[in-house]
Amino acid sequence: MKRALSTGRLLAGVQPEGAAGERFDDLLRQPGLRIERIVSTGQVSPPDFWYDQSEGEWVLLVAGQARLLIEGEGSPRFLKAGDWIDLPPHCRHRVEWTDPECQTIWLAVYYAPPVGGD
Amino acid sequence: MKRALSTGRLLAGVQPEGAAGERFDDLLRQPGLRIERIVSTGQVSPPDFWYDQSEGEWVLLVAGQARLLIEGEGSPRFLKAGDWIDLPPHCRHRVEWTDPECQTIWLAVYYAPPVGGD
Repeated sequence: MKRALSTGRLLAGVQPEGAAGERFDDLLRQPGLRIERIVSTGQVSPPDFWYDQSEGEWVLLVAGQARLLIEGEGSPRFLKAGDWIDLPPHCRHRVEWTDPECQTIWLAVYYAPPVGGD
Repeated sequence: MKRALSTGRLLAGVQPEGAAGERFDDLLRQPGLRIERIVSTGQVSPPDFWYDQSEGEWVLLVAGQARLLIEGEGSPRFLKAGDWIDLPPHCRHRVEWTDPECQTIWLAVYYAPPVGGD
């Protein structure tokens, strides 16, 4: 089946959904690739929780600001609009802080590592 | 070989390179996936030129503004910051206009179509 063209607005429709208040929207999904928008308003990772993903994650902070801690680093990285980071598979990380005063918009590209890679 | 963590600033280092004045930077590259930043300052596609790619292209307009014509559509789509569009493989398109008064920053994710798809 031929894929249709699809479009959207990254900065629109950012109101929270559900009680947790953080919002996740898939923008593209196919085997081995997913593009997701995440909208945070002060949310952080739960205590002692680490993301540990089998996919790579290329993530851009589109708006707002955040602090991201990479396991093994002494202090979190401060991210502001336009900053991106490519997290290899199993690069453990957690969100230590997002600005509670505004919406922080992330664009995350999750991708399968190359075959034969690590 | 284990992939290293890499980072960058999408809104920095946007000065033109070369005579054409449009700038292209690969931010991530692996088989079947490439993430590229494009910085345009008034550039448009040459007359009668159409992009016709075997990959899909998910593209976000991060800053600036542009008009993108999709083959078969009567008029170009106006894109402003935050607008994204997913162009399936072989969706012919051309850039009719980018704002000559400012830098238009695109984030393009080129991806192999799913096996058995199209």
